[in-house]
Amino acid sequence: MAATGRMAINPDLANERRKASFHVEKLTNFIYHGVERVRTMQFMQNIVSQDDVVKKTKPWAFRTNEEKFDTNLRIYSALSRRVKELGITDDFSMRYFNKDVARNEVNMLYLHNEVFTPTIAMHGTEEQRKKFLPLAKNLTIIGAYAQTELAHGTFIRGLETTATYCTETKEFVVHSLTLTPTKYWSGALGKIANYCILMAQLYTQGKCHGPHMFLCPLRDLVTHQSLPGVELGVIGPKFGVNEINNGFLRLSNVRIPRDHMLMRYSKVLEDGTYIKPVNDRLVYGSLVMNRATIVNDVANGLAMACTIAVRYSAVRRQSELSPGQEAQILDYQTQQHKLFPLLAEAYAYHFAGDAVQNSYLQMSKAIEAGDLQLLPVLHALSAGLKAFGTWGASAGIGVCQMACGGHGYSQASGFPKIYTKTTPTCTLDGENTVMMLQTARYLMKCMKKMQSGEKLPDLVLYLSMDLSGKSSMSSDVDLPILVTAYQHRAARLTKAATTAAQMLMNDGRSPTEAFNMASTQLVWAAKAHCHQYVVNVFVNTVTEAKVDNNTRAVLTTLCKLYAVNGILENLGEFLQDQYFTAEQVDILTDQLTTLLTAVRPDAVALVDAFDFHDELLDSCLGRYDGNVYHALYQFAKSSPLNEKDVQDSYYKFIKPMREGQDIMPSRL
Amino acid sequence: MAATGRMAINPDLANERRKASFHVEKLTNFIYHGVERVRTMQFMQNIVSQDDVVKKTKPWAFRTNEEKFDTNLRIYSALSRRVKELGITDDFSMRYFNKDVARNEVNMLYLHNEVFTPTIAMHGTEEQRKKFLPLAKNLTIIGAYAQTELAHGTFIRGLETTATYCTETKEFVVHSLTLTPTKYWSGALGKIANYCILMAQLYTQGKCHGPHMFLCPLRDLVTHQSLPGVELGVIGPKFGVNEINNGFLRLSNVRIPRDHMLMRYSKVLEDGTYIKPVNDRLVYGSLVMNRATIVNDVANGLAMACTIAVRYSAVRRQSELSPGQEAQILDYQTQQHKLFPLLAEAYAYHFAGDAVQNSYLQMSKAIEAGDLQLLPVLHALSAGLKAFGTWGASAGIGVCQMACGGHGYSQASGFPKIYTKTTPTCTLDGENTVMMLQTARYLMKCMKKMQSGEKLPDLVLYLSMDLSGKSSMSSDVDLPILVTAYQHRAARLTKAATTAAQMLMNDGRSPTEAFNMASTQLVWAAKAHCHQYVVNVFVNTVTEAKVDNNTRAVLTTLCKLYAVNGILENLGEFLQDQYFTAEQVDILTDQLTTLLTAVRPDAVALVDAFDFHDELLDSCLGRYDGNVYHALYQFAKSSPLNEKDVQDSYYKFIKPMREGQDIMPSRL
Repeated sequence: MAATGRMAINPDLANERRKASFHVEKLTNFIYHGVERVRTMQFMQNIVSQDDVVKKTKPWAFRTNEEKFDTNLRIYSALSRRVKELGITDDFSMRYFNKDVARNEVNMLYLHNEVFTPTIAMHGTEEQRKKFLPLAKNLTIIGAYAQTELAHGTFIRGLETTATYCTETKEFVVHSLTLTPTKYWSGALGKIANYCILMAQLYTQGKCHGPHMFLCPLRDLVTHQSLPGVELGVIGPKFGVNEINNGFLRLSNVRIPRDHMLMRYSKVLEDGTYIKPVNDRLVYGSLVMNRATIVNDVANGLAMACTIAVRYSAVRRQSELSPGQEAQILDYQTQQHKLFPLLAEAYAYHFAGDAVQNSYLQMSKAIEAGDLQLLPVLHALSAGLKAFGTWGASAGIGVCQMACGGHGYSQASGFPKIYTKTTPTCTLDGENTVMMLQTARYLMKCMKKMQSGEKLPDLVLYLSMDLSGKSSMSSDVDLPILVTAYQHRAARLTKAATTAAQMLMNDGRSPTEAFNMASTQLVWAAKAHCHQYVVNVFVNTVTEAKVDNNTRAVLTTLCKLYAVNGILENLGEFLQDQYFTAEQVDILTDQLTTLLTAVRPDAVALVDAFDFHDELLDSCLGRYDGNVYHALYQFAKSSPLNEKDVQDSYYKFIKPMREGQDIMPSRL
Repeated sequence: MAATGRMAINPDLANERRKASFHVEKLTNFIYHGVERVRTMQFMQNIVSQDDVVKKTKPWAFRTNEEKFDTNLRIYSALSRRVKELGITDDFSMRYFNKDVARNEVNMLYLHNEVFTPTIAMHGTEEQRKKFLPLAKNLTIIGAYAQTELAHGTFIRGLETTATYCTETKEFVVHSLTLTPTKYWSGALGKIANYCILMAQLYTQGKCHGPHMFLCPLRDLVTHQSLPGVELGVIGPKFGVNEINNGFLRLSNVRIPRDHMLMRYSKVLEDGTYIKPVNDRLVYGSLVMNRATIVNDVANGLAMACTIAVRYSAVRRQSELSPGQEAQILDYQTQQHKLFPLLAEAYAYHFAGDAVQNSYLQMSKAIEAGDLQLLPVLHALSAGLKAFGTWGASAGIGVCQMACGGHGYSQASGFPKIYTKTTPTCTLDGENTVMMLQTARYLMKCMKKMQSGEKLPDLVLYLSMDLSGKSSMSSDVDLPILVTAYQHRAARLTKAATTAAQMLMNDGRSPTEAFNMASTQLVWAAKAHCHQYVVNVFVNTVTEAKVDNNTRAVLTTLCKLYAVNGILENLGEFLQDQYFTAEQVDILTDQLTTLLTAVRPDAVALVDAFDFHDELLDSCLGRYDGNVYHALYQFAKSSPLNEKDVQDSYYKFIKPMREGQDIMPSRL
């Protein structure tokens, strides 16, 4: 969408870049962990930008949903060929490629490469891995992951699809008895996959053993036609990501061989005997990693939205701050107050996602050494953090969009694509409220442990702080003192929610009932826990970063803005017990405007540092060169409806009305 | 989208309706001001539901953007014919028809009927009205309203399009000198309109007199082809409402007769003499009405979203609250906490919109009698309220969507259409932040008046309350005491923001600078002002309503929920000066859960009372009969991509990849 021809940089943007207080590349290298990685990302990005097939495709915004599907296949088959030709195979490059390198679209084989194949690797036996992984790698089988059903999502135990073992034929019969167990939503299931991992209730020897995973063939490996007993297709248009063919699947007594149940943990022997898993807690480990990755992904989405909004606000002039000269929108405090805390939030989520991934890697080593201790605290954190980050980023992208006036609403802005690609993360891989309640449940357990004198893991140690303390914050607003404030709030809310649930149980409610009746408060506590983690990580990152002073200074300003703004946005939770005085609140309010002013000269450089290419942003407003009006005009001119001056619809519908004619139904 | 065949009502929904504490029809009649109006709305709605043309059109979700445009024309030309045949002409019916009676789409002639024609009536001279109104009424001219430019929106004085009077030919030359004055965004401008009201800088006798309105011909009245010097078309795909052809327009020295300037207020005489308007403050009156109407519109959008989410949450069962039985989602407190305050908010906005419209009608009478006193306070209120309501409703619709799990993201849910139709209201007819700052500017003036001992108008009289007072709220949480709390908060924030701006001026800042540097706080104050108004209106409406006791009881519960939840969501602003004690906050927290429980049995009846037909909701999840899974399955099955089992794209792109072949660029 962004014009490819080189134009002069808009003078306002050039000026912003000149006056930045730090070197953009240094910050970029810090964000992405070193210059090597940045170069690799740029190399991969260039493969896309320079690809002839990609260049020739119709712009995303002008495609119908059918064309989005088709064009996505076209682009990714061409790019895959190119990547193969170049002999690129390393993990980092391939992950970056599989994510969203090309114009922020989802790679058609993303689910196959990043979910289907790894699931076989993780849940298959040695023999199953030997048999199926090569088939998956050479695309003989292309897989989807079919878990969610029409009437069942989060509550996996409630799934209705059945897999019944038949001792005589040594097969499983997989079946959807009614309409509600129809598999629904699985990506790539509708049209691309010829196999799927099917989550189904295992029945053997007349007993149900709960949900298990099965490899289920869907389409003929030669003709690609759907197999007998398999009814499948796409689920129809969605809010966004229509390039992915999310599918539905109804199974009518389909028989699959015994070795198609993934049996690394649970097993069904030939005679139908069910063997329980010895230890499947490792599986939770991969959830931690997935959810941390989601936090990085939505940080990316929010950073893209900030890039567009900040650059456009530097270019856009409107109204007057001094007579006779229209001001850059970025000079209005209200605009700064909309965008700069979100920019800080994008950095915060990025660092938090990285921190959980690091903890995961440490934990994996501990687990290999037999130490599972870290798993519960990290599992609980990653669940809540996924919810915290995806909610925050989705809302933030919406704010960036609205901060761009009417143009933000045009597909030319790039926002609709980024917004609709980000919001599903609030539901997928664990519905956000359910995730927050998982975190809360863990926090409640910690409160019990504390009461019984058990030591808490480091990540929740703060829960045992003295709650009668008040903030010692003075006008310099030190970062560690802000961290303490967030921990105080989280500890207080956790205690209040736990007490509320406990009192309900004392009144005779069942634990489930009591949990439900206190769940609003429990979510408040879980959010506060995640918030303190994000602030804490941001402060540690800034403090420990191996960067030059200028870079550290700008990161410190951002970090303080994130922390101060977060307190003001949730002020009631900090004030109910008078943790802050009225004077301290005034200090925070003053700090807010001081920090907005401090970020102002570096705002453009801070979004530049994320290093998103124009092709990836796909935005007329967010172009690096700032030639937004030229781009918007070109976008309008090239719109398909403008191919004709007078639409056929005019003659069909408007002309007859103007002439007072009846419109004949036969014209339909 | 909703199936038209009759199916049995889902038993969960039937049960909800049985246990409601009030008569749904009575509340419906109260909401819409009497049984006559409700019958008229239902009659108009039935014209749509039963129309053969409407029935035969492809479902909205399956249409391409081009088809959306074409189908919209098809539907509205057919419906207009039907309305004409039936001889319907009364204002109420026609407004309802012109708004969004048909499947929640925008009538292609909406802008012509509701903006273009009324603008001529309001701004034209007697002769201009006589000349142009009949042409507009019989569609000889079909108009758009072209104000916003590519680089200019809110700040009308900054518009760049020029209209230069030429004394010799007695014509105006209208012109866009560069790219940035290109008119952009105007609805119906791209393809439907053959005329527009053009807002342009008037130049005469070598002097600029600021923006004025001109009737500008765009297309040949016979051939509909664009006229020489007129370059126009659609601006391309948007986030939503692609059935409207928002357009762009570049003018190259187009000459229009002198009588095409709308001259009721300002005039240009034949010799080029400019005559200033005597009094154009009346024009602001129509802004008040427009903005109040927007508040009602977004209340409607939020009510639709609540209808879908509440009904689906009654039908959907997930996880267990007691062993062995999956619970209705609506029984989870977190779900209640997401939806019930929004349901209350929809009612609150509806009543607030009505209240401003009533005040407008009273004011119009006063103005006719020469009394302009009410105009400033009402103008300021309507600006802020438009922002308050559109922000709240947009965010609320997003929450409803996400409260429906994955299915909320499908176009089958109806949410994407409602969301993308609502969010533009945050920008159109006055960008929200700019609106809030207009309100704030008025509040600042009130503070000055107060200091100089002037009496304030009733609507802002509360600003003079004693701010040292504390809340007397006890555990019964009386409504009037909650109103006082909201007024206290608004008065305190107004005083704080005004003082902040004043101190900056005392430090030597210009008024513009000081206003900008205090603008974040000023927005907080303006929001609080609007919030107290909405709460106040809700309380008055409930108290004064002529309804039976059951209806009043349920409305009172909703009203209290709205007020209590609003305090908890903005708690910091109520606590900074310790207006509430910690114990009072505990009371409010308890009240919240008590009120959620109180709304629970009436939730479905409360959304039913809005009386949205299935055709209007266009949602598989929000169907009146609750047969959601059947509808979702049908939606998927009928999706265009499912016409073929194997897509052509498979053979083009996936098969070659699987076979390790190169994909030839010539295949493109």
